[in-house]
Amino acid sequence: MAKGSSISGFPEWLPSERVVEQRVIDTLRNVFELNGFIGIETRAVEQGSSLLKKGETSKEIYLLSRLQDVGNEADTPVEDRLGLHFDLTVPLSRYVVEHSGALAFPFKRWQIQKVWRGERPQEGRFREFVQADIDVIGNGDLPDHYEVELPLVMVSALERLREFGLPKATVHANNRKLSEGFYRGLGLEDIEGVLREIDKLDKIGPDEVTKLLVSECGATEAQARACLELADLNAADGAELEEKFNALCDAHGIAHESEAYDLAMQGLRTLAMIVDEAARIRPGAVIADLKIARGLDYYTGSVYETFLDGASSLGSICSGGRYDNLASQGNKKYPGVGLSIGLSRLVSYMLHTAGAEASRVSPSAVLVAVWDEQDRATSNHIAQALRDRGISADVAPTAAKLGKQIKYASKLGIPYVWFPSEANEDTEHEGDEVKNIITGEQQPADVRSWEPDTVYAQQTVSVNA
Amino acid sequence: MAKGSSISGFPEWLPSERVVEQRVIDTLRNVFELNGFIGIETRAVEQGSSLLKKGETSKEIYLLSRLQDVGNEADTPVEDRLGLHFDLTVPLSRYVVEHSGALAFPFKRWQIQKVWRGERPQEGRFREFVQADIDVIGNGDLPDHYEVELPLVMVSALERLREFGLPKATVHANNRKLSEGFYRGLGLEDIEGVLREIDKLDKIGPDEVTKLLVSECGATEAQARACLELADLNAADGAELEEKFNALCDAHGIAHESEAYDLAMQGLRTLAMIVDEAARIRPGAVIADLKIARGLDYYTGSVYETFLDGASSLGSICSGGRYDNLASQGNKKYPGVGLSIGLSRLVSYMLHTAGAEASRVSPSAVLVAVWDEQDRATSNHIAQALRDRGISADVAPTAAKLGKQIKYASKLGIPYVWFPSEANEDTEHEGDEVKNIITGEQQPADVRSWEPDTVYAQQTVSVNA
Repeated sequence: MAKGSSISGFPEWLPSERVVEQRVIDTLRNVFELNGFIGIETRAVEQGSSLLKKGETSKEIYLLSRLQDVGNEADTPVEDRLGLHFDLTVPLSRYVVEHSGALAFPFKRWQIQKVWRGERPQEGRFREFVQADIDVIGNGDLPDHYEVELPLVMVSALERLREFGLPKATVHANNRKLSEGFYRGLGLEDIEGVLREIDKLDKIGPDEVTKLLVSECGATEAQARACLELADLNAADGAELEEKFNALCDAHGIAHESEAYDLAMQGLRTLAMIVDEAARIRPGAVIADLKIARGLDYYTGSVYETFLDGASSLGSICSGGRYDNLASQGNKKYPGVGLSIGLSRLVSYMLHTAGAEASRVSPSAVLVAVWDEQDRATSNHIAQALRDRGISADVAPTAAKLGKQIKYASKLGIPYVWFPSEANEDTEHEGDEVKNIITGEQQPADVRSWEPDTVYAQQTVSVNA
Repeated sequence: MAKGSSISGFPEWLPSERVVEQRVIDTLRNVFELNGFIGIETRAVEQGSSLLKKGETSKEIYLLSRLQDVGNEADTPVEDRLGLHFDLTVPLSRYVVEHSGALAFPFKRWQIQKVWRGERPQEGRFREFVQADIDVIGNGDLPDHYEVELPLVMVSALERLREFGLPKATVHANNRKLSEGFYRGLGLEDIEGVLREIDKLDKIGPDEVTKLLVSECGATEAQARACLELADLNAADGAELEEKFNALCDAHGIAHESEAYDLAMQGLRTLAMIVDEAARIRPGAVIADLKIARGLDYYTGSVYETFLDGASSLGSICSGGRYDNLASQGNKKYPGVGLSIGLSRLVSYMLHTAGAEASRVSPSAVLVAVWDEQDRATSNHIAQALRDRGISADVAPTAAKLGKQIKYASKLGIPYVWFPSEANEDTEHEGDEVKNIITGEQQPADVRSWEPDTVYAQQTVSVNA
């Protein structure tokens, strides 16, 4: 992030860093579109009523007011004010309901946009950042095969980012119904509360979570221990998952004929399908992890978090789940499943931990030198001829001493400096020469046919080893 | 714009419309990068103090407040609150000052981002829209050749958009110093005021402007008429411009030895250079138009507006100018020149007037059919093989009747439906067939070598004739 950024939590990249972010965005878009996702953009604002309704961040909203209304803000109830969206899922749900007549369902969409969280400024927390989301929304129903396909699309997208220094990513999947069924089977009632405490396991550890389950969710010590045992359960495949889960139910007296058990089984079967199917397609990419809870209250089935090898301090970099009740209109429901990459944090990791670097700041491959301001037209002419052939070219800002012009190219990382022949612009520039200022090699060049070496042709991003 | 968009002034595109916007953005970015401009993104918010300082829209700002602070907003002075940026020039100036140590000057940047105007809701006005800007910022000084190069880059960018239905664009240039020198020569003092009234010429006509110059700016009838004569002046080239301007000065008794005349001449020479140089490179692209005033108060020299042939009701679609005093730090000045395209209005014109259309809603070239849910893996396998070869592919959402699957493809505009052979997924799909559902042609196809016809390979945008 650019140093001295004057507003905490609003990161801003320097030009060379922005190249990395832009490349990441282009790569994700490419993967999403190869997989048939349709790109949309939603407005940055939603009605307060819509923002307040859903999601973990309902307390972290930026509300807007017109300069003219300063001092009278309180006259308008928060529900009727506009606020900046805090994620891309709530806006998508609203978009789908609003435009349902114009969409083909299931509606597969990608969306890469900024979101805002009206948090108190604090170290390391972004209040503005970019999210990259994919979701599928059904009209009435939504087949569960999307619950394995979407995390796999994200895995293949994250795989593509490894060339920019991202470690291997693994999606950890769970299912809300499985957890809820088990908790209910134990006799617990505050399901939201239990999920919220379990979500803290990685942060505060099992002892603290046990205490909170007892003090905040009315659990007995035994119930709390059972919740932790479930969170601890792991399995190599769907069959082992079912076996171990049944053993746990038996150990805690949860009857197989109960409604609670049925609910848990619904979730378990989806989870088993996900891990088995994913293992077949991309072994090791998606695993069952029964402590994944997700803070957001709108998930109703599968939930996902994604962790990077050796970067667990980053937390989940790509999360999501299935939400059956987020979007509805009258009797109509639009169930969805989706995942969201926290892009800004990911780019920050690539830049500052993994050492991702742009090959150059400027998109230009060539800087055309200017001998004299009178000859600027000649240099412009050459640059335009290169651009017409798809080669990005810039022209020296002033007819300064050659060393200064080369220094300008060097500062921008532009690999080639073009020297126009001293003839006038109407000749065919037959005396032109081009110098690679990185290798020092200088050669005669014809603007109609010259090509940069492949390695210097494009701005690229790689990892500084 | 999507119908029924529930918040007036916040446009939102349907997926097929978004394809057009995305293509326009990609095209502009390509032109800007070919010309050596560096892409940046600034945060969406600025300090109130920074937003209030500059620009015509200082009254049209959205301020932010955290949900927790609702009711206490008035405790914080507006200057200390955060607000959404209303353009990309004020943020650029702040960015350049903040990061000057890390930038190479002159700093050429492109930036395509949303901006917000905290206006009262009114028909046809956007409160959120996308701007596409290029600017060059110097450190200390900035050569004036950029004042002709930047409008020409915009012209070549707008030229590229003609394939999406945009009419020919012409940049109208003027110079603040020319106008100011002339007005001062006449004895007028409220220069800002005169510029503001002259800016209304196209909207309210010369009679109304004359009245306003008299009533609001303290002009006599004769002075007002002289201002209108200047606004009316046109010339084929720089020499004619100077000749006609001198005649006008003589007619109104402005002495050639005056300070006012010197100021006007500074502006005139830059303007003459711009039109002569532009005429040489791209005849007819940039003309002198002495009624161009620009409302924004930060311009100090060249000003530009751009109009489309046969679409004058749109007003200027690309405006800008030179600003010498927008960015500074202590004694250091960072003069700049730039232009900004109002992208959302342009896309709206392309969609609704010019008839620009996406060839299809989905990026996919192929929908792989599913015979039976048991065989979904086979279809997934085929789709993945196509994607690995760069062909965007989707898989039917359900193993519905074939007609329904084809209808889904058709609704998304996907041109090809792939029929897996009924063999199992481990065979090489030798019995596969692919049907072009637009032409009706069906042929055997091998997933390892099949290519879509060029015309159907990519999502494209063209004008519906």
